Amino acid sequence: MHRSLKALRAVRRYRPDPVPRALIEQIVDAARWTGSARNRQPWRFVAVTDPVKLDELSRCGAYAVHLASAPVVLVLASVENSFSDTVFDMGRITQSICLAAQELGLGTCPTTFHPEPNVSRVAALLNLPAGWRPGHAVAIGYPAAISSPSAIPTGRLSTAELLHWD
Amino acid sequence: MHRSLKALRAVRRYRPDPVPRALIEQIVDAARWTGSARNRQPWRFVAVTDPVKLDELSRCGAYAVHLASAPVVLVLASVENSFSDTVFDMGRITQSICLAAQELGLGTCPTTFHPEPNVSRVAALLNLPAGWRPGHAVAIGYPAAISSPSAIPTGRLSTAELLHWD
Repeated sequence: MHRSLKALRAVRRYRPDPVPRALIEQIVDAARWTGSARNRQPWRFVAVTDPVKLDELSRCGAYAVHLASAPVVLVLASVENSFSDTVFDMGRITQSICLAAQELGLGTCPTTFHPEPNVSRVAALLNLPAGWRPGHAVAIGYPAAISSPSAIPTGRLSTAELLHWD
Repeated sequence: MHRSLKALRAVRRYRPDPVPRALIEQIVDAARWTGSARNRQPWRFVAVTDPVKLDELSRCGAYAVHLASAPVVLVLASVENSFSDTVFDMGRITQSICLAAQELGLGTCPTTFHPEPNVSRVAALLNLPAGWRPGHAVAIGYPAAISSPSAIPTGRLSTAELLHWD
């Protein structure tokens, strides 16, 4: 588990191979056990594979361009309420989704739809019922042989820098 | 990994045994690889073991009472900014922390400090530098033989209820 946590990286380039539907179901089946405030489970997932819709999704965020070339994008919708716990819980289940996908040999990249009009565009594109906000997505696919270069430094702060004892 | 994800549950009752410092360091060392928006790593962690301070922390949230009896509480501080991505990222690393702890035989319970004046109380209690907001904590300890009953239904929605194909 610790090795999986340390190995997880965002993957933004994918082989064109489709991802079997059964694998997406396995990912959700594992991730759905993620805890949430008062066990509200404030999440629903929409799997998108239509290239036209993927292209549209890729235009709904400043860092969403990789969605266009992903074999499948799992859009994460949250209950529209005023709780910051909801956003926090969406982060928790996103980490579960990425770890579950990694176990199946799949690469993932969490993505934020932004600004708010783009979130509304995604909701309209997917015909989401009122009250559900598609604020995030996870692109999923088999990692391409050549990984994407990053403009952002990819290391991490050390444990000594992060952890303090009171 | 899928088994670990499915098995993770909040643990609110702990054996009194202390948690070795090295284990907390191992948890942070694994969780620090969690991704964040633009790799900002907007998190810092303060490990609290002083019973007086734990008691104080347990009074800083409506559902924080279990913090008083935890051998160690890892307070999660985030960079104070206006990004909702920050809260989302705190959720991601919280899930990593809970999974990393489970692997070491430890039980965990994520906790929200609330309302905002309580967050300020926690910041003062821990002498956090300005600009860091301790919005959450994870209680950590060896699970007690008798688990805590829950007033909230503990099951989860099915994959069929959660996942839709566009």
